[in-house]
This record gives sequence, C-alpha cells and structure tokens, in this order.
Amino acid sequence: MGRSRTHARPHPAIDLDRLRHDLEALGRIGFSEADGGLHRESFSDADMQARHWFIARLAEAGLDAEMDGAGNVIGRWQTGRGPAILIGSHLDSVPAGGMFDGALGVVAGLECVRTLREHGIAPGCPLEVIATSEEEGRFGGMLGAQALCGRLSRAQIEAARDESGLALTEAMARQGLDPAAALRAARDPGAVKAFVELHVEQGPVLEARGIPVGIVEGISGVFNWTVTLRGRANHAGTTPMDLRRDAFMGLADFAGRIPEIIDRSGTTQSRLTVGRVELEPNFPHTVPGAAEFSLIGRDVDEAVMQALAEACRAALTQAAENHGLVLETREVSWLAPKRCHPEVIAAFRAQAERLGIETLTMPSGAGHDTQLMSEITRAGMIFVPSIGGVSHAPQERTDWADIETGSNLLLHTILALAEA
Amino acid sequence: MGRSRTHARPHPAIDLDRLRHDLEALGRIGFSEADGGLHRESFSDADMQARHWFIARLAEAGLDAEMDGAGNVIGRWQTGRGPAILIGSHLDSVPAGGMFDGALGVVAGLECVRTLREHGIAPGCPLEVIATSEEEGRFGGMLGAQALCGRLSRAQIEAARDESGLALTEAMARQGLDPAAALRAARDPGAVKAFVELHVEQGPVLEARGIPVGIVEGISGVFNWTVTLRGRANHAGTTPMDLRRDAFMGLADFAGRIPEIIDRSGTTQSRLTVGRVELEPNFPHTVPGAAEFSLIGRDVDEAVMQALAEACRAALTQAAENHGLVLETREVSWLAPKRCHPEVIAAFRAQAERLGIETLTMPSGAGHDTQLMSEITRAGMIFVPSIGGVSHAPQERTDWADIETGSNLLLHTILALAEA
Repeated sequence: MGRSRTHARPHPAIDLDRLRHDLEALGRIGFSEADGGLHRESFSDADMQARHWFIARLAEAGLDAEMDGAGNVIGRWQTGRGPAILIGSHLDSVPAGGMFDGALGVVAGLECVRTLREHGIAPGCPLEVIATSEEEGRFGGMLGAQALCGRLSRAQIEAARDESGLALTEAMARQGLDPAAALRAARDPGAVKAFVELHVEQGPVLEARGIPVGIVEGISGVFNWTVTLRGRANHAGTTPMDLRRDAFMGLADFAGRIPEIIDRSGTTQSRLTVGRVELEPNFPHTVPGAAEFSLIGRDVDEAVMQALAEACRAALTQAAENHGLVLETREVSWLAPKRCHPEVIAAFRAQAERLGIETLTMPSGAGHDTQLMSEITRAGMIFVPSIGGVSHAPQERTDWADIETGSNLLLHTILALAEA
Repeated sequence: MGRSRTHARPHPAIDLDRLRHDLEALGRIGFSEADGGLHRESFSDADMQARHWFIARLAEAGLDAEMDGAGNVIGRWQTGRGPAILIGSHLDSVPAGGMFDGALGVVAGLECVRTLREHGIAPGCPLEVIATSEEEGRFGGMLGAQALCGRLSRAQIEAARDESGLALTEAMARQGLDPAAALRAARDPGAVKAFVELHVEQGPVLEARGIPVGIVEGISGVFNWTVTLRGRANHAGTTPMDLRRDAFMGLADFAGRIPEIIDRSGTTQSRLTVGRVELEPNFPHTVPGAAEFSLIGRDVDEAVMQALAEACRAALTQAAENHGLVLETREVSWLAPKRCHPEVIAAFRAQAERLGIETLTMPSGAGHDTQLMSEITRAGMIFVPSIGGVSHAPQERTDWADIETGSNLLLHTILALAEA
C-alpha cells in the first residue's frame, strides 16, 4: 500500500520496529486460529493476560505500573511538576476483532514515553500511559474511562450483564478483581492536565482522501431508535395493492426519504442508518404485517441531531400515513456529541504543521474513551487510516507508515502540551 | 354483519342450517384450544379423522363413498348418463388455519347433492363430491388434485418432504396408506364432464365491494424470486453516507419503484410483494452488507407477468447500481396463469342472473385445486367473501348469508351443467 510521505523524520522519533513488535505480541494474546480474529473481550482470561503483559512492558520501560480497581492499567513516569498528561486507549477487543483497535493507542503511548526516556528528554509534567478496561461494550462499554471520571455508581456495577447474562461483578470476581474497588479508581481532575488518544479511524475517509492523520474535532452524538410500523398481514396473492397495509413498503417509503432528510436537515457529518430489520411474519407469500427496525442518527452538532430526529419523525409519520400503518417510535438512547478540547486540537495542528504532516480535521462517528475523559480534563484524539475502512474484524489493518506518522505526531504533541 | 340481499330464495335451495352444522362439526376436528386455530395438516391424524368423518356423511347421504390412493375422498351419485360432474375442494388446513378454507367447498358440494336428492331432482349425469388431499402444501401442495389429473410421478412422491424433513411416503404409511397407490388415483378425462369449486376468497375485494359472490375468471400465475443485494458491512458511525454500499438502502430503492413498475407494466390484477427480508449482519450500528429478500409477482396474464419480471429486473439493476451493490436474482419458480373454462364461467353467470345474485368476475390470486382440474376437464370456481380479507388464520370468517347465496349458485350451476 505504501503511500509516499512528504514529511521528514522528526526528532525525536518513535521506533516503529519496537512499536510493531509490541503490537504484534499483543495481537497474539487472544488470537483465534479458528476465525483469525482477536477474542479479548473485557475481563476474559485473554484480556487479563494482555493487561499483565502490558504491566510488564511498562515496568521494563521504567514506569511505576499497576492495575486500578476498574482494571485500567496505568504506568506513571514521575517527572516534571503538577498534573499529569494521560496517554492511552483500551486493551479489550470485540469478539473476532482486529489487533489495531485500542491496542495501537496503548502501545503508541508506551512508545512515546520510551522514546522520550531514551533520548533523555524529560517533559515538564508527569506522563501516564493508560490502558483502559471494558471500552468495547461487553458490559455496557467505557467502564474503565467512566471509573477514571468518577461516573460509576455501585448500582451500575451491580446491574451490568453481558449478552449471556453473566454479571460484571461475577466476571471481575473470577479474575480476582473486587468490583467495589472500581468506585475507587476515580481520578482527581486537578491532578490531570490532559488526555490524548491515538486510534484507528474505523472508517474509510482518511484512506479515501490519502491523508495519514485525522485530528478529531469531536465525537458524534447518537440517537438510537427502535421503530415499529404495524399494518396488516394478508395473503400476497389475494390482496390487491391498493387494499394493502404493507409494513415493509412503509419502511421502504421512509428509507427512500433518508437522502432528502440529510440534504435538508443534516450536514456532511450526518449519518442515518437502518441496520436491523425484522418483518412479521417474514414469509414470501404474506404481505408484511409489521416491520420493526433500528434507526441510528449521528451528528457532531446536537442542534443538527435534533433537526434530523424531527425530520425522521415527520418522514416516518408520512410513510405510515401513505401505507395505512400505525407508527411507534421508541428512543433507546440519546447521547449528546462531545467536543474535543480546542487547546488539544490546536496543539495537534501546530505540531502537524511543524512536522509537515498533512491532517484532516474530522469528527469521530464511533464512541471512544476520549469522550468520557473530556468530562474531567482537556481531551483530544487523532486517527490513523483504516485500510478499506474495516474495523471490528480480523481484516482490520493500518499501514505501518501511517502508524509511524501518527505516533510521532502524538509524541510531539505530548511534549508541546507538557510545556504549555 | 348481515348485509341485505336483493335476491329471493331459489327453488330448490340448500339447507343452510344443515350445511352449517356439518362445517362446525368439521371445525372441531383438529381444533386447538391453545391458539384457537385448526391444525389439520395433510396426512395428520386430524386430517385422516376429518376424511373418515366425511366418508360417513357421504354414505349417510346415500352416495358410494371411498378414499382413493392419494387420500382424496370421493362420494358418487350414480345417476343420469355419461361423464360425471365433480364438485369439491380440500379438507386439509394450514397450521393454525380457519374452518372455512377448503372445508366450506367440500360441505357445500355435499349439501348440493343432498338438496337435489331430497327434492327428488335427478340431474342428467352422475355427480361426485370430492374432498382433495394435501392442497395446502405440507408436502408441496395440491397432491390430491395432481393425482386425479394423472400428473404425479413416483419420483415426486418419493422426494416430497415436509418442513421437519418427514417424507410424504412415511407420513402416508403411518396412516395406513400405500404411497404407490396415489399413482392409481388418476381419473379418465373422458369420464369427467366438469369440475366446480366453491371457496372463500381469502382476500378483501368482495367484502370491500359489498358483493356476495365472485366468479373466478382465472388463477393468477406466480413468479417467485430470491434476490440478493451485496454491498459492504461497515461501521454506521464512521462510514459517511456517500462512501457506503448499503444493501438495505438498495432494497428500499427497489421497493420504492414497485408502484411505478405496476403502473407502467402491470394491471389492476398485478401484485408485487417483498414478504421476506434478511439483512446481514442485521445489527443497528452496522451498515447492512447484504440483503436477501423474496419477490413474488402475480398476474392473470402471462405476458403481463413477463413484462413485470422484466421491469423488476431493470429496477433491481438500477437500484444496485445506485448503491454500488452486486445483484443476484434466482427464480425459485414460475407458474403460468390458468384460465377457468368459459362455459363454466358462463354457466355461473347465467344462473346468478336468473337467481338475482350480484357477482363480480375476478381473478384468484391464490392457487386452488381448480387450476389443476382445468387440465383434464372444464373447470371453474366461485368465491364467497372473507370478512376483513382474513384467511389462513383462526379469525377466518364468512357471513352465513353469503355462504347460502354462494351454495345456491353452486347448486343451480351444477344442474345447468348437468343438462348442458
């Protein structure tokens, strides 16, 4: 794939071979020969093995390494003065995931600290490399980051279950962790100067534009609806088209309006997706009597989200009316967008410019630890391209040259933030 | 419900109470308290019990009654001369079906013969009341009628399985039937003068128009396609709308063209139905990578069917192109339409006019034994209204006044055909 880069090697510069060695070693922990994917679901044996492996790497690099009560692994370099810059991402994976998602940001954080130490460059404040726990959502997601932000409650910990019904408390206890200790993982915001994260884009934009690094301006808000259209299941042969109340045709009517909804009420950052569809009775010879489907809307601007939601409601109402259907809309969740901190964005931009790295300012359509960390500190993140936009799959890849570029930008931004 | 009828009671006239008593008795054989539906799947214990019950009713009425090798029950009145008129429908039901579908035409046939006999009216040719077997499709459908027409092959009998994998031969053997004997159920076309069937409409047209009887002009042909659109499954948050290859949006694009396809290439009798949809991975946060769906097309004119199929193919191709999808279309089956015999249609019309019964000439969108019987004799059928268009469900109902009207039209048409 190797695209040519116009920027020169900066000083200091991370050691790509060393980073790659670490990432590939991590990629073997939880790897399944059967499907070629990574199975490092949170609080599984493989997840814990990866965390202990990482504690050993942090210690090798001379950091004070430990696991907090929420399973987050933290390696601290006690240098300079005042609050610390936290650098990291998550170590857990989705089932049959790839080796770059999360893990890349963790080993890049370690590599940045190692690079500074071996060059004898001491930043003006302490640095911490963090590998958060349960980001991917086995038990709801972003558990480690929530713990760091002091947002966890005992009730939440006790209620969390995975898809099989296993309690979070039980999964943690099986790994020798005390679930109640997660409540003690909260960080004092006064002791945190900034949080920075490097992550794979998990989308096709950077690769399509041929740009090695994306500077994330914010994380899209998400509304998640379950919509039901109810008509009448009838014999598909005996029921004339004009006497039908076809729930699927109502859904198709609505879906056909999505491009216009985005044109009128959205932006180029807006997304509207019908990802799940269940028809009833779902039989070829029967006019569908009901259609239940998911509708997920996203934008980086909450006012735009509101406008999209309103336009969707109007279009659904119109589609239901056109086809004689009863409409039911249930909001499963509404998550507001999160802005990355302007000073962190500015620092990424300034260093990229200085190093001659082309960047694209872009939103994140997926959720990340950064959105939680932004509640207690100045938080920001950068993306490196995902080949083919693929993620959450064994085929997940990022060009090593892009990883080097992104990691060097991370390194120099950390230095700049430490001095600011 | 009772709509007022303008026609007077004809002479002779069927005994509605007696017919209703029979139909309700049949409605208890295979009735399930659990779902309120009829479970008389072909060659089940309940189905066989209903057949034996009917043999006893035929014998009571003074007919020579027997079961043929295919499970068809036949009661013959040896009167007049020459080939016989066959009158009937099927006795089996779908799972959780209603008590009118099929059974009504069987007991109406019996009631017509009983009425003639008790009035001392001997028609000019023999009459046979027939209750066909396996019409509903547990083992492929219309088995009894296929046997009567001599269309069954040994290979077909041996290959047939139900959804659970049970062989037709095994199901028949369990009921003491010799599957090979089904091959000997073929009727000599020279010994059959006509076939007439009364059936519930199973659609909403007659009720919506307030007309008590439909005279069927023909049975729609059906094409049954399985269509697959393949795009790319991607993260719904990170993949911009213009970089998606969303298989569901391709399907919605096609479905939105269905009204125009019918306007341009179809008739008021055309039907196009997407009844079954399966998305992959069918997850709210993932852009659908593939959509597999059924597309069923129907019309009474095969040239119109051809035009519809061609227009569907063009619209699918266009939708696939619009969304960057790969299209695959598999024709599961193509059944040509069948015309009812013009002389039988004319006889129904003439008697309806004479008796002052309002009728609607209409196609049948569902398949019926009549379409097979038309291969060996002059065949025709009439419909009585289905309340709410409901059929194949416990809620299936027909107004008793309409049943009386339809049965009397059947009776007088049999007499007219016998003399013709």
